[in-house]
Amino acid sequence: MLAVETSRMRTIQLEYRRQGLRLGESIEMKVIVDLCVVPMGVGVSVSKYVAECQKVLQEAGLEHQLHAYGTNIEGEWDAVFAAIKRCHERVHAMGAPRITTSIKVGTRTDRDQTMQDKIDSVTDGNL
Amino acid sequence: MLAVETSRMRTIQLEYRRQGLRLGESIEMKVIVDLCVVPMGVGVSVSKYVAECQKVLQEAGLEHQLHAYGTNIEGEWDAVFAAIKRCHERVHAMGAPRITTSIKVGTRTDRDQTMQDKIDSVTDGNL
Amino acid sequence: MLAVETSRMRTIQLEYRRQGLRLGESIEMKVIVDLCVVPMGVGVSVSKYVAECQKVLQEAGLEHQLHAYGTNIEGEWDAVFAAIKRCHERVHAMGAPRITTSIKVGTRTDRDQTMQDKIDSVTDGNL
Amino acid sequence: MLAVETSRMRTIQLEYRRQGLRLGESIEMKVIVDLCVVPMGVGVSVSKYVAECQKVLQEAGLEHQLHAYGTNIEGEWDAVFAAIKRCHERVHAMGAPRITTSIKVGTRTDRDQTMQDKIDSVTDGNL
Repeated sequence: MLAVETSRMRTIQLEYRRQGLRLGESIEMKVIVDLCVVPMGVGVSVSKYVAECQKVLQEAGLEHQLHAYGTNIEGEWDAVFAAIKRCHERVHAMGAPRITTSIKVGTRTDRDQTMQDKIDSVTDGNL
Repeated sequence: MLAVETSRMRTIQLEYRRQGLRLGESIEMKVIVDLCVVPMGVGVSVSKYVAECQKVLQEAGLEHQLHAYGTNIEGEWDAVFAAIKRCHERVHAMGAPRITTSIKVGTRTDRDQTMQDKIDSVTDGNL
Repeated sequence: MLAVETSRMRTIQLEYRRQGLRLGESIEMKVIVDLCVVPMGVGVSVSKYVAECQKVLQEAGLEHQLHAYGTNIEGEWDAVFAAIKRCHERVHAMGAPRITTSIKVGTRTDRDQTMQDKIDSVTDGNL
Repeated sequence: MLAVETSRMRTIQLEYRRQGLRLGESIEMKVIVDLCVVPMGVGVSVSKYVAECQKVLQEAGLEHQLHAYGTNIEGEWDAVFAAIKRCHERVHAMGAPRITTSIKVGTRTDRDQTMQDKIDSVTDGNL
């Protein structure tokens, strides 16, 4: 077990070094996120809370695109997740006692990809 | 406990009767769905599998809209879920040995709502 | 484009034939599902609705396991999704005007895997 | 519109003041999270990556519970999301070029609730 553990840590350390990082140091990661915030205990209509979250993303200067079941967001990991936290704070501050949120997060190290690239890769292949 | 159980069943039966249904009979439900199919074990690029799922939705005659992290779909419950099953069948048939899919499903009995209505309710409030 | 389309259909047809199926015919698929049903417009406490969904799964004879943010379910695709539809019907019948549900669905053709197998594969490797 | 905006900001500021906070300042929020990390481009078996994420949560001292389709986590917002970021860093460092992760996040201001409380509220009601 110790051998396995040592080999595991070595692999991880090598990868960090390859990227010029020390363990514990944060890797800059671009994310594409899908966010769906559901306030509970405020009745059946939740559009004003979703609109408030759109404002939060706008204020954060994050690229984002609303769709019928959530919002796509693009940016650095920390900026995007700080904005998502702010969404929860604001929606609570607006009076919602409970929130359940779904998030999908995509990261990749092989290449850069924007939200539009993801859509294009499907529709271009869809000849 | 029996009393609780009986009262529970009575409530449910009354609601079914109100809708002119017998218990066991299926309630017609319109759904708005968000679908994200992730084939595993086929490498890093999955756009051709996603494109195939778009074809399945098209062939099923379902209203749908691709976004950067999934596809919004609108229709009757049975039609939509039959199409989602077909997506899994097709993606396996294309060679993916494993699939993990995320689905969000929204239903409501208070009023009809389309995918566009949902977007409008947020952006109109977002003046 | 026609050539691409023809080759695509041929691949799919071959796979169906390999499995002894005709196109259009349903492939039997075992699924592992994670289900999280969120009733809206019924206040902040939703446990009685979740409990009702547990009953639905029980009545359906499906293997299932409640956790802190949903329920794992194991079974054939059609049986599992019929039960999920019944959950929506019941929760609406109990008075919830709106429901938003998250579902994760896993299927694989390379081998059988139970919910317990999935947990074991992680914890056994976690020596 | 300006009047609406002003009233919106007043509501939010009042809530912040009620909690003894300045706008911009972070509200401490306890979260219950469900996490499912899916490495892509590494073949069909992903258990060693999931096991690594378990280690990350352990190292972070976070309460967590593995289930068949993810892991429940309990803690302060910042600690939990820092750990989730570390999961992505580690899984990339282990060689996965692409990751797609699903997260459910629950917060509430009406009362404290642990993962076990959530399970109990359903099973106790399920008499």
